[in-house]
Amino acid sequence: MAYSEIKALLFDVFGTVVDWRGSITREMQRFGSEQQINQDWQQFALDWRALYQPAMEGIRSGKRGYVKLDQLHRENLQQLLRTYGLESLTEAQLGHVNRVWHRLQPWEDTLPGMNRLKKHYVLASVSNGNVALMVNMAKHSAIPWDMILGSETAQGYKPQDKVYLHSAQMLGLEPAQCMMVAAHNDDLYAARALGFKTAYINRPYEYGEGQINDLHAEEAWDIVGEYMTDVADELVC
Amino acid sequence: MAYSEIKALLFDVFGTVVDWRGSITREMQRFGSEQQINQDWQQFALDWRALYQPAMEGIRSGKRGYVKLDQLHRENLQQLLRTYGLESLTEAQLGHVNRVWHRLQPWEDTLPGMNRLKKHYVLASVSNGNVALMVNMAKHSAIPWDMILGSETAQGYKPQDKVYLHSAQMLGLEPAQCMMVAAHNDDLYAARALGFKTAYINRPYEYGEGQINDLHAEEAWDIVGEYMTDVADELVC
Repeated sequence: MAYSEIKALLFDVFGTVVDWRGSITREMQRFGSEQQINQDWQQFALDWRALYQPAMEGIRSGKRGYVKLDQLHRENLQQLLRTYGLESLTEAQLGHVNRVWHRLQPWEDTLPGMNRLKKHYVLASVSNGNVALMVNMAKHSAIPWDMILGSETAQGYKPQDKVYLHSAQMLGLEPAQCMMVAAHNDDLYAARALGFKTAYINRPYEYGEGQINDLHAEEAWDIVGEYMTDVADELVC
Repeated sequence: MAYSEIKALLFDVFGTVVDWRGSITREMQRFGSEQQINQDWQQFALDWRALYQPAMEGIRSGKRGYVKLDQLHRENLQQLLRTYGLESLTEAQLGHVNRVWHRLQPWEDTLPGMNRLKKHYVLASVSNGNVALMVNMAKHSAIPWDMILGSETAQGYKPQDKVYLHSAQMLGLEPAQCMMVAAHNDDLYAARALGFKTAYINRPYEYGEGQINDLHAEEAWDIVGEYMTDVADELVC
């Protein structure tokens, strides 16, 4: 394919760039130990994430105006407090727990791949995370973004068309000049339908051992790889 | 002052981070030579810049809806074509000339200062330049932004309050947690009135030998320096 046309790589982040499950599990294991709260923190991470799509759906459907993901995460966390013995935490502690999403860590292959790609392409996040979340995560984990786009700058949630289209438009690019990089087939279906190039990275342990979706590329995406470094191998000679 | 409160540095760009006059003059001298158009290209840069404030004023006043600076630059360039012998250029060539603003180069002290500051603070542009302009300039000149904010994300033009306030809000910060860094007293007056910290960098040659404004700090700004490295010296021990 004509890679020479591509100017920017647009990245899904949760699951594609960072390991949210592992990061939250590890941090909450430490936090739980300090607070003497003994729980299955991996299940906590999975349960918290399970409330993500339903929360966004209220906004996508128009039932609710746009609010940032930080706020949705906080509302969803509220639903889990009793189950996970967190109901006696202070508001400051809950704010700290909620911002664990600002401290997610990359998969091992992420930074080696992205740092090579950055020399040749504009790297932008097109995530459902809000700007502060993405900026803080990048500072925490050295993710080399050129720009943070996606949900908050477009005032919507993927897979709404406007999130992809507004991101390309802000970069002054046509969709065909942008490649969406994601570990989720749905994200790539939406992007391809709008004319974006697509790269799939397989993350079969995003949800842990029991993952049932996105175990492989469901379409002939423009690039299909196991690691971010595979995308770099393909695009950077 | 309480520097410990500061989380982000917000930068004016044209004149503060990059030398637009020198960059445009040098590039147009090369371009003019190739095209055999012999003009005073520094005067061209100054004349083009002189149309900048009036063009934004139409949008600030509400007479005109928001359009990106790239478009204002192109409209302003149109007014200069005959005076500078550019009227026979193709549209592609004029687009290239217009995007000289995407290729501006930093002052010598800029990157040494910013690269030190980046280790401790979020660095965001809060410029009247649009996102694509800022992203491309950063790629061209290795400017280490964490985020590009300002005019386009706020849909306004400095010194409108909303450009400063929306930028802080997107970072999840209060104005007092942000320091505006600029070579222009007006920018800092506007930011301080909203509660932002302020740093002034003196750029007495931004407009060349004949500069008449912003030759010194007109107020006791929180930091006053000659170079970006002075800001780093003050903030980073």
